[in-house]
Amino acid sequence: MDFVALKNKYEKIKSESRKLDMSRGKPAPSQLDTVNELLFAISSGDECILPSGVDCRNYGGIDGIPQMKSLFAQILGMEEKEIIVGGNSSLTMMYDTVARAMFFGACEGSKPWSKCEKISFLCPVPGYDRHFAISEAFGMNMINVPYKEDGPDMDFIEKAVAEDESIKGIWCVPKYSNPTGITYSDEVVRRFAALKPKAKDFRVFWDNAYVVHDLFDGGDSLLNVFDEAKKQGNEDMFYIFASTSKISFAGSGIAVFASSKKNVDHALSYMKYQTIGPDKMNQLRHAKLFPNIDSIMVQMEKHAELIRPKFLAVLEAFEKELSDVEGVWWSKPKGGYFISLNLPKGKAKLVVSLAKEAGLALTPAGASFPYGKDPDDTNIRISPTYPTLDELKQALELLCTVVKLVCHKDFE
Amino acid sequence: MDFVALKNKYEKIKSESRKLDMSRGKPAPSQLDTVNELLFAISSGDECILPSGVDCRNYGGIDGIPQMKSLFAQILGMEEKEIIVGGNSSLTMMYDTVARAMFFGACEGSKPWSKCEKISFLCPVPGYDRHFAISEAFGMNMINVPYKEDGPDMDFIEKAVAEDESIKGIWCVPKYSNPTGITYSDEVVRRFAALKPKAKDFRVFWDNAYVVHDLFDGGDSLLNVFDEAKKQGNEDMFYIFASTSKISFAGSGIAVFASSKKNVDHALSYMKYQTIGPDKMNQLRHAKLFPNIDSIMVQMEKHAELIRPKFLAVLEAFEKELSDVEGVWWSKPKGGYFISLNLPKGKAKLVVSLAKEAGLALTPAGASFPYGKDPDDTNIRISPTYPTLDELKQALELLCTVVKLVCHKDFE
Repeated sequence: MDFVALKNKYEKIKSESRKLDMSRGKPAPSQLDTVNELLFAISSGDECILPSGVDCRNYGGIDGIPQMKSLFAQILGMEEKEIIVGGNSSLTMMYDTVARAMFFGACEGSKPWSKCEKISFLCPVPGYDRHFAISEAFGMNMINVPYKEDGPDMDFIEKAVAEDESIKGIWCVPKYSNPTGITYSDEVVRRFAALKPKAKDFRVFWDNAYVVHDLFDGGDSLLNVFDEAKKQGNEDMFYIFASTSKISFAGSGIAVFASSKKNVDHALSYMKYQTIGPDKMNQLRHAKLFPNIDSIMVQMEKHAELIRPKFLAVLEAFEKELSDVEGVWWSKPKGGYFISLNLPKGKAKLVVSLAKEAGLALTPAGASFPYGKDPDDTNIRISPTYPTLDELKQALELLCTVVKLVCHKDFE
Repeated sequence: MDFVALKNKYEKIKSESRKLDMSRGKPAPSQLDTVNELLFAISSGDECILPSGVDCRNYGGIDGIPQMKSLFAQILGMEEKEIIVGGNSSLTMMYDTVARAMFFGACEGSKPWSKCEKISFLCPVPGYDRHFAISEAFGMNMINVPYKEDGPDMDFIEKAVAEDESIKGIWCVPKYSNPTGITYSDEVVRRFAALKPKAKDFRVFWDNAYVVHDLFDGGDSLLNVFDEAKKQGNEDMFYIFASTSKISFAGSGIAVFASSKKNVDHALSYMKYQTIGPDKMNQLRHAKLFPNIDSIMVQMEKHAELIRPKFLAVLEAFEKELSDVEGVWWSKPKGGYFISLNLPKGKAKLVVSLAKEAGLALTPAGASFPYGKDPDDTNIRISPTYPTLDELKQALELLCTVVKLVCHKDFE
């Protein structure tokens, strides 16, 4: 299509006052409907009493109910004693874990991070904006780590943590990474497990948010980092997080923190000041609906059936419309919530802004980078799950038009 | 009863291997049963959509749903814009509020408390152990404030906050105070509202945990501190907390933080790093069951009917058994969860220990004081709600026997 035709098409779409939103990785209402049974999971007061005698309606049980520990142990391939089952948000568990390390130190006898002159965190980019926001809130120095095809650049990471004692942590989404869709290879996982950081209280924040979130046959498999870490005697180095937010209700799921028994005990010794215990009733609802990993996999197939056509629509549109546009490429993930669209240098902000003017909200360009700054201004995070398929197709028509427009040689 | 008879009675009870627990202020299962309707409060996915279009199952809404803001506004006598509705624990909201002030400062432009050389908190004693534990966790200097009949000693407080800039806060339970049962008089509330602290970021942590928790006719009424504070231009000085933990399910209730709009906005500007939002489904369940303050009062009468006989049993037993024992006196609260038993100096630990040996768990002596230290070793917190009436009567027989024993002139 020539430049004038593209411009006309853009103006025409703009005149239609579309209102489309692909800005956040939210499940669609139809996905939430697949788990409405949660509303009726507990049908009497008697059912609130666990075999142990614990009344889920009452106070107590700071580390969560055994049924949910067992479920997360199966999901994560860990032991129940390595697990703390929390409230509705793994982000809160991550923030609180950082806050505890800041105030009280990451382990017995170690210096609180807030007492250190400088705290640095490694940030594989592009990554999850809310991870970076936590580091920014606590005034950390964030260091961008480039991605390779099979995960973050391990040469870079090994060297950095070995040399720089100010580096206390790294943010990882090891499976269907937000937003690249990359799953860390076995070699990358093994190299993580074998890291030899200069800072003895260095911690890997392993946010396994998409642990069971396959969309296509032959989904990626992620090596169990905790097993590998144990082989190296490095299990205290890993803080592992997950949740049911994208399994059950996004805002009312169950989050988990998992680590070595030593780290779990250390966390609990400070969590007791913050809470008498999580909402055990919501844990019980989940335990009733999902008694084991098999029931989780059945549920995830329901999500996949709804999300898959949306991912396919994005990939097909990009393939059809953008494969000839020089310097444009995108991820083709087998699961997760995002597709990562990469443009020629200096084009991402412009695309987001022109899309917005014509009625499509995208994740702000740069959001997937520390301080909101994409150094090359190339990356856009595509979140196809929330809109309906019809809305998505309208959004894609608009997005592809904008991309082709700003990448056209005649565009000034 | 003579000393030998008392001793024999104690030994006899001990030989019966009773297992009784009055250690914590937990609601009884029968109380929890009064609110089992919460299990069925939402009966379809459609009901999860608010009139505003918000889907309670999905992410978002960091300050809570409007329905719950409205309910808490009625309960606290405040405006909806002054309210943040949280998760299942007001303790968590208090801890997080302290943690934010430690890290980020209590308001825009103020120094983080953790950067101050010394932080002190005033602690009216006896008080709530978990308040003091938060202060202790953050390394604060705690200053005991004596109680008078109508609240904490305001002369002491006014002088202390006016002179000592290190004093950044005070812990208050203004109605049916834990454990004294005292409700602050209008004069005390007005003096709080008019405090002129040297530290401009001094904050009153006003934990109105028992705001609607009357047990007897002619329950205490507490003046609205926030109205009074507004008259003085002092509304930024108050952090107000409450929850439905002792209205609905203890471990799965809804907590609230309320303050000036300025403080609410400041809190939200940091809470956004910690959470995408609270569990709106549980908020919706509560909003459906309790659409207004009237429905709350009906619910509280159900609790009162169950708790009242227990409080009466304690008061009758104390009256009958202990009124002649010199130096022993107790509170006679019209609501709340506790009765405060005061013994001659140096006797509290002993009573708790002998009671434990004979099968009755009480709150540890000293627990109601900073650092767990009751300087006079006189106070015991009595929590009559959890045991059944039968168990309570057995516990009281044992407790009164122990008190009479250790207060007997022949006891060495």
